[in-house]
Amino acid sequence: MVIDKDTLLKEGERLDVLKRENIQIIQSPSVFSFSLDAVLLADFADLPRTRKATIVDFCSGNGAVAFLLTGKTKNPIIGVEVQDQLVDMARRTVQLNAIEERVSFVHADINDITQHLKADSVDVITCNPPYFKDLSDSTKNDLDAYTIARHEILLTLPQLMNQTSRLLKMNGKAYFVHRPDRFFEILDAMRANRLAPKKIRFIYPYEGKEANMILIEAIKDGKEEGLKILPPLFIHDASREYSEEVKAILFGE
Amino acid sequence: MVIDKDTLLKEGERLDVLKRENIQIIQSPSVFSFSLDAVLLADFADLPRTRKATIVDFCSGNGAVAFLLTGKTKNPIIGVEVQDQLVDMARRTVQLNAIEERVSFVHADINDITQHLKADSVDVITCNPPYFKDLSDSTKNDLDAYTIARHEILLTLPQLMNQTSRLLKMNGKAYFVHRPDRFFEILDAMRANRLAPKKIRFIYPYEGKEANMILIEAIKDGKEEGLKILPPLFIHDASREYSEEVKAILFGE
Repeated sequence: MVIDKDTLLKEGERLDVLKRENIQIIQSPSVFSFSLDAVLLADFADLPRTRKATIVDFCSGNGAVAFLLTGKTKNPIIGVEVQDQLVDMARRTVQLNAIEERVSFVHADINDITQHLKADSVDVITCNPPYFKDLSDSTKNDLDAYTIARHEILLTLPQLMNQTSRLLKMNGKAYFVHRPDRFFEILDAMRANRLAPKKIRFIYPYEGKEANMILIEAIKDGKEEGLKILPPLFIHDASREYSEEVKAILFGE
Repeated sequence: MVIDKDTLLKEGERLDVLKRENIQIIQSPSVFSFSLDAVLLADFADLPRTRKATIVDFCSGNGAVAFLLTGKTKNPIIGVEVQDQLVDMARRTVQLNAIEERVSFVHADINDITQHLKADSVDVITCNPPYFKDLSDSTKNDLDAYTIARHEILLTLPQLMNQTSRLLKMNGKAYFVHRPDRFFEILDAMRANRLAPKKIRFIYPYEGKEANMILIEAIKDGKEEGLKILPPLFIHDASREYSEEVKAILFGE
């Protein structure tokens, strides 16, 4: 069956192409568009390519990380997203690309995830969570999808790490992208939930600037010894273009 | 009075020059020679240049960090070292350079430091501590100066952070150089002792390699929010020479 793109797209939405994965992804500038963070997270995650594994992407938004991960594994990917309009967008991307066997989405609050997926059953979790602290009550009256995706309104760091740990098998791996100014909160929440940080990569906008993103790999019940600080990643080079490494991640080599 | 260098130098010792500080420093390849770590620590530390301040270098060895810091401040520097032959070496460097007004050394165990220096009285502490865990008892029979300087035999991380915190004034700053594989132990020991890490700089031997050193600035009773991950420092460039930044630190611009 040929899907009519125009029927699938809602007002304000557009199609972008994930070239390496050969997937057309529905985006909405006003509701949710994925950013470089999602691309770097998907690139950072280490997935079993062929060995059978359960792979889950938390806070999946319009599904960008889940779709990007299809290029790294033969296993199906399960995205989890609490906002119905984002799940709807992601599911229409699945339909448009006819990849029902490869990617699916659970419409759920991460805090209820064990009602949907079995505890201690997942091999790999990825997550690009809300980066910012909860807002003050006064500004919470009309929350849009964008605000919920960016602020810890429905999911705090301790909640995220608790559910990640519950879902992962022993020695299962979790990958997060986040902000360096919340570094200690992230580490504390991981370590309070049996997640041992094993690899950290700091991301810098340019050489000579402070880091503005972090990638972290944690292992459930892993040992804390032997933390690795991976080589830094610079987003831009001296000429303000994407660096060679970012170009390779975005467009393939 | 002109000091005779030959009289001051003991067997196996040699003189090296700290060019920027115009100091001849006594080194001993078999007992203790400072490394690039000391140079990077001294460069990293932020000292009041003219404002009156008490500045202490813990684990001062042959005094390299203390001597290097003279280039950054008009205040005198106090080094603290437990090994008598290293204190002796450092004091002979002071004598040789006639800088008694600028640098002095306390021969003491850091664990007893408040018997020598007043608690809550120090503005800045620097420390290049022993990096490695204590040795097993079996290998402890004949400990040389080199082993004591490198292993946590006389000073553990929690002890170091406890004494650093005791000595510092509120909002006093501490600077450490250490290894990334002990990162969590360092952070835990700091935070357990009212030292808030504020700036971290990771040091990489080459581009594309994992970090092998860390520089950390902590503030006593500081807030943990707003941690800064400073730009990475590469020791070597692609041609395996010292990088431009390291050359500038070592030799001046």
